Amino acid sequence: MSADLPGVLLVMTTLPNADTAARIARALVEGGHAACVSIGAPVRSVYVWQGALEDASEVPLAIKTTANAYDALEAALRALHPYELPEIIALPVTRGLPAYLQWVDAGCGGAGRSC
Amino acid sequence: MSADLPGVLLVMTTLPNADTAARIARALVEGGHAACVSIGAPVRSVYVWQGALEDASEVPLAIKTTANAYDALEAALRALHPYELPEIIALPVTRGLPAYLQWVDAGCGGAGRSC
Amino acid sequence: MSADLPGVLLVMTTLPNADTAARIARALVEGGHAACVSIGAPVRSVYVWQGALEDASEVPLAIKTTANAYDALEAALRALHPYELPEIIALPVTRGLPAYLQWVDAGCGGAGRSC
Repeated sequence: MSADLPGVLLVMTTLPNADTAARIARALVEGGHAACVSIGAPVRSVYVWQGALEDASEVPLAIKTTANAYDALEAALRALHPYELPEIIALPVTRGLPAYLQWVDAGCGGAGRSC
Repeated sequence: MSADLPGVLLVMTTLPNADTAARIARALVEGGHAACVSIGAPVRSVYVWQGALEDASEVPLAIKTTANAYDALEAALRALHPYELPEIIALPVTRGLPAYLQWVDAGCGGAGRSC
Repeated sequence: MSADLPGVLLVMTTLPNADTAARIARALVEGGHAACVSIGAPVRSVYVWQGALEDASEVPLAIKTTANAYDALEAALRALHPYELPEIIALPVTRGLPAYLQWVDAGCGGAGRSC
């Protein structure tokens, strides 16, 4: 990634239903924690919880934010999230359309070009 | 990643509808810009555009390409895309089934084993 | 990523149908190869195979595992997978909720906190 482009992250989490997902998506964008949040089609999550195999329907969020905004995003998402232990994972974006990366930066309070 | 494996990228973008998504997916594969493009189920994207909170239905693409092919992919996708400022982000694949990574490389004009 | 957090990976593959996807998701979690596997909504995959452009319906899996568990996961997935050449790609998680990352580690046989 060229040095003068912002470090963008794709953050992923899952919510129990579409209403909660939409409410949290709006809160993250309006709070300046993310430039864009995509609410995905429902998924089935298979995992072990307290010794039992679970197979739960969940709604995934794909959150476009920046490395600089990550700590505040994680804290806000943690506070908003209904789960005791939510999935919150961040993947690095190493290349991208420069104007879009700057737009994400601006959406998260960075110096990038806004729209 | 072992040094002799190609650098594969997962590139993500969103399109306004399934027809446009399918047309662009085929063009990227037939043009040798991607070995495989997965057209996902529709998502709802929440973001601010020109000061207003948007909540738009979009169709995501997950594009499997290589670092060597990225610049040409971005240019082709930019030219084909109907948006003024499309999401085009690339995530690094750091491990994977070697034969699959080589197949992706071959699909993007690299020296990897074809099928 | 702070040095004492486990290296978590998001591994992606696709399966021909939901039943096969669910069977493999359970086998990976019960086998200790993944802490959580999300079975996504069907996607359409466009790619060239033996010279012909294919447009196939597939079911994606998003597998949350660790770098330490990756080789065993790949071998297990390869053995379970019905395809001759399956997509198996791994993306690095560079930040995340520490308690969740440790839960993933514990689910894959690591020292992280279990639940």
